[in-house]
Amino acid sequence: MSRFTPVNFSDIDLHGPFWHERLETVLTRTIPSQHEKLEEAGILESLKLPDPPPPLRIPRHPNGFTVQVFWDSDVGKWVEAAAYALSHRRDADIEAKIDAIVEDLANAQADDGYLNCWYLGREPENRWTNLRDNHEMYNAGHLLEGAIAYFQATGRRRFLGIMERYIDHMIARFGKGPGQVRGYGGHEEIEIALMKLYHLDRKKKHLDFCAYLINERGQQPPHYYDVEREAREAKNGGVDPQRYVFKDYEYNQSHKPVREQDKVVGHAVRAMYLYTAMADLAAAIDDADLKRACEVLWKDVMDTKMYVTAGLGPSAHNEGFTHDYDLPNQTAYAETCASVALIFWAQKMLHLDLDGQYADILELAMYNGALVGLSRDGKQYFYANPLESDGTPTRWEWHPCPCCTMNVSRLVASVAGYFMSKAEDGVAFHLYGGAKTTTIIAGTEVTLNEVSNYPWSGDINISIDPAQPASFDVKLRIPGWCRGASVQVNGEALDVATAENGYLTIRREWRGGDQIALALPMPAVRLYANPHVIMDAGRVALKRGPLVYCIEEVDNPGGWVQRLRLPRDAELRAETRSDLFDGIVTLKADAIAIEEAEFRELYRTAPPKEDKAELTAVPYYLWANRGQGTMLVWVPEK
Amino acid sequence: MSRFTPVNFSDIDLHGPFWHERLETVLTRTIPSQHEKLEEAGILESLKLPDPPPPLRIPRHPNGFTVQVFWDSDVGKWVEAAAYALSHRRDADIEAKIDAIVEDLANAQADDGYLNCWYLGREPENRWTNLRDNHEMYNAGHLLEGAIAYFQATGRRRFLGIMERYIDHMIARFGKGPGQVRGYGGHEEIEIALMKLYHLDRKKKHLDFCAYLINERGQQPPHYYDVEREAREAKNGGVDPQRYVFKDYEYNQSHKPVREQDKVVGHAVRAMYLYTAMADLAAAIDDADLKRACEVLWKDVMDTKMYVTAGLGPSAHNEGFTHDYDLPNQTAYAETCASVALIFWAQKMLHLDLDGQYADILELAMYNGALVGLSRDGKQYFYANPLESDGTPTRWEWHPCPCCTMNVSRLVASVAGYFMSKAEDGVAFHLYGGAKTTTIIAGTEVTLNEVSNYPWSGDINISIDPAQPASFDVKLRIPGWCRGASVQVNGEALDVATAENGYLTIRREWRGGDQIALALPMPAVRLYANPHVIMDAGRVALKRGPLVYCIEEVDNPGGWVQRLRLPRDAELRAETRSDLFDGIVTLKADAIAIEEAEFRELYRTAPPKEDKAELTAVPYYLWANRGQGTMLVWVPEK
Repeated sequence: MSRFTPVNFSDIDLHGPFWHERLETVLTRTIPSQHEKLEEAGILESLKLPDPPPPLRIPRHPNGFTVQVFWDSDVGKWVEAAAYALSHRRDADIEAKIDAIVEDLANAQADDGYLNCWYLGREPENRWTNLRDNHEMYNAGHLLEGAIAYFQATGRRRFLGIMERYIDHMIARFGKGPGQVRGYGGHEEIEIALMKLYHLDRKKKHLDFCAYLINERGQQPPHYYDVEREAREAKNGGVDPQRYVFKDYEYNQSHKPVREQDKVVGHAVRAMYLYTAMADLAAAIDDADLKRACEVLWKDVMDTKMYVTAGLGPSAHNEGFTHDYDLPNQTAYAETCASVALIFWAQKMLHLDLDGQYADILELAMYNGALVGLSRDGKQYFYANPLESDGTPTRWEWHPCPCCTMNVSRLVASVAGYFMSKAEDGVAFHLYGGAKTTTIIAGTEVTLNEVSNYPWSGDINISIDPAQPASFDVKLRIPGWCRGASVQVNGEALDVATAENGYLTIRREWRGGDQIALALPMPAVRLYANPHVIMDAGRVALKRGPLVYCIEEVDNPGGWVQRLRLPRDAELRAETRSDLFDGIVTLKADAIAIEEAEFRELYRTAPPKEDKAELTAVPYYLWANRGQGTMLVWVPEK
Repeated sequence: MSRFTPVNFSDIDLHGPFWHERLETVLTRTIPSQHEKLEEAGILESLKLPDPPPPLRIPRHPNGFTVQVFWDSDVGKWVEAAAYALSHRRDADIEAKIDAIVEDLANAQADDGYLNCWYLGREPENRWTNLRDNHEMYNAGHLLEGAIAYFQATGRRRFLGIMERYIDHMIARFGKGPGQVRGYGGHEEIEIALMKLYHLDRKKKHLDFCAYLINERGQQPPHYYDVEREAREAKNGGVDPQRYVFKDYEYNQSHKPVREQDKVVGHAVRAMYLYTAMADLAAAIDDADLKRACEVLWKDVMDTKMYVTAGLGPSAHNEGFTHDYDLPNQTAYAETCASVALIFWAQKMLHLDLDGQYADILELAMYNGALVGLSRDGKQYFYANPLESDGTPTRWEWHPCPCCTMNVSRLVASVAGYFMSKAEDGVAFHLYGGAKTTTIIAGTEVTLNEVSNYPWSGDINISIDPAQPASFDVKLRIPGWCRGASVQVNGEALDVATAENGYLTIRREWRGGDQIALALPMPAVRLYANPHVIMDAGRVALKRGPLVYCIEEVDNPGGWVQRLRLPRDAELRAETRSDLFDGIVTLKADAIAIEEAEFRELYRTAPPKEDKAELTAVPYYLWANRGQGTMLVWVPEK
């Protein structure tokens, strides 16, 4: 069988209620409001290169750094999200806004193709002098992704042409050839974009440049970031004007060549972007060695470093990873971007082998760690995603570093692209929730329609309608969290035990009107963390289907949710609540509450008194949409 | 009855085994090794003002700050600790070392009395331009405390004279008079030193200057730190070369006048030093208003902000306080200096009213939060004192900011000064553990000798030997943690229920050979934290007498101590262990251990398996003296 590739989101009608709501919210509220915010923050203005440049909107950090060095990337990500919106339905207003941005970029671009508005506007003489910190390649990557998306949505090539020129400029400058500089970006991203460009135009120079960047990373001696630092020092009397707060190169995964890396380290988003590109490249050039490196890194993060919500990176200090099993809840950084990027990586891993373990994590990150980053109204965000709150954190309307905002909008706007894949003679369903497409399989036009109320219900119906009878594989993902799945075709039961690597393969001659009924039982369950995760000792997380739950103060009157204890034998009752958020399933249980009013001292020898209470849990991704209050994912067991 | 004042440490022979060991270790190992470290670190060299100044030993922080601005204070604190050592026994070598320092300071001092080696050596033109950050008054305070201690130990006045000149320089410059500057130090300390000087020389100008500094703090508008910042900006084209990372003045307790402050905020050591001086001043000038402010602040920290170890300040960010009940264990900052300073404050509060609640905290901080800062061998330290460890933290031999090292040595070297107080017609015992003194009470020379193996045992014998029969009060502290205390005088039982404010007063005619037997039962107990301390939910701390216990990996074989659960009904067995640390009491209990070996996944639906186990706890102050490993104060209950 040929390799599976994702069915493009623009070819899928995502009609199920769960994703329809999220998608409509992002298209009608999030993406337009993000353009307003980009304008208010001065980010759009920063593309217009005046002389002198506009004043700094955000003060420099004492070490000379300002987030404005990556404003180009925010523009690129917004264009990408907005272009995805156009793929759903054309909109002259959005197109005019994108064209205005493209016009500014065209005017800004240097004669030699270089295009970075920060450097061109403020210190053109310093371009390419600090790849370690200053995000030139990162910005280029996001602009390129925007350009590709806009081209795919509208067929307009101008932005793509600008970016191709810029890429050519980089290809000329960076590499291992004579006279070239052996640099690579400190914040990985362009590698992903280059693979997208290669998938679009199949030009070997783009694939080769991506492979160069990935393979050169971490090569030493000498280490490129030492070389460029020494050059800066030579210019500045021995002192580097941009000091490095991260003591080693693990921060940006350049501590050793990527094929030798076996532990997930450093800044979480950087790491995920790198691994995404590595997996994509491994597939494109069929590189078993690179694939194995990806698998080792995947196992490391899965075994020791992932929050139960698929959040990644416990530490605010490096926005990233620390040591194995270090997963503090209240101070979890777990940046929204990192879970979005984990989805990117999981999708690439999934398409190497079609192994359901990757789809399981893709789904987990989608419904929890990523989706929590966007508010119900589509206009507020979380950057960090703690798993416990003392009531202090609230969603914000914008952020000095707005990376997460557009990572969520571009994800949701293209979310249908994660639902199905097809091969020459087969189709695979990864996610469920109401998705329809018409495509060619085994030479026949086939309409596939999956209908369900997933993730609230695991009852899924899929109709397979080939224009004429045709033999091909239908692969159904049986989620790793599911026990007791059952499948019928036209009323006839199949043996789910024959499923391999998380997929049940149904090979038969399909005829118009064929129906698959898939039942995925989803009782609420308790999850226990590995004892090495000391923060979760004696605690349980509640999960139903792909959704991780949390207890929020608004549903649990009487004060702090941290008062609640869940007896081990308490039944977890799923309850449909049509009055909450257009209809969700909550979990209820008989619980015990600590009586806090009579405990006045800070410490005492008598244990706190206990009362009976009822505990109500809601999906984690919905927390902090109904005012401020305490929240807890890991509930103490009694 | 007249007011009680502490019996000076130099008049007390601390002969009990517990403190004898600590004292000898500090005198023979800690204080000499600290001089070596001061030399190695370049701190002593920094007092010799060459031209040009010596290179920076420690790089500047990106905001221009370097810890070297407070190196003078480290010297002052070492001289203070070393002088206390001399009060125990003269030592020509130590005296020569101190005299060499005094010689350097005499050479460094400016003609107008100003004395700050950092500014004099590097930027004399900038002296007194940044009281907020740059520690000039803080340094002066510590140097003055050193000078006083050296004078008291040896009678030599040279250092004291240098410091009196410097104080006169400040008195002339700072104040509310015409032409004066209304400044005060950003890091409180000099206020404590000025009160010491006033207690020594009774000069009103020193009392008045201290009162000015305390009362001026936080007065506005205009706020003095705004005034001096604007002056710096005016000199530097609108940009302050020293940016302020703390957004408000709560960091240094200057957000409002001190008498209006009712919440403990900001940097913990600064806060404690301020409150110490406030309480001392309130007693000296009999200021009921200032005393009430101290009491309100005391209640705030006791009710909502103190670790069970008497550690203070959960956050590394501001080295200080956050919000009520925010007491994370693994990330606790709980700087050693803050607990030492709490002891200073508690002693001042105790002497306002002789209320045992202050002695209870003094004792708690002494045996736990402060003592933990010094290793058993007297040459290693903790700066931050977490209540839980994943095995990463280790003691260090020195620190770029060595404030805690000499705070512990000066505390232990003078620890006897916290044991007893006397008034004209009475004596009060605060701490127990083997202490003897001869003093004048009610006009008669009395020898008092308290003999015990406290804190390991609560059986205490006190002999009262007046030169001739005399009537006076003997006040015995009945610790707040103690239930069922009993007291006999010459074999005759007294009614302990008559104790008031934590002290039992025995008034009688005392004759040679009179014996008091005090029995303080000290069964091991469990402490529960207020439910608002969400980090300690479902957990207990173990305590016996004044000692808080912890479980350490070295005593609990089988891996992580976080595996252990203590059933609520498990008996806590105190066990004398002569093989550990010259003899200590450990606590044992039948417990449950999570089996970790068979739990391989990061998350799973089956709870971890459990085994029977024995739990062994040791006093918290002793942790991290036997290699690296996990540690836990708050043990999960089962």
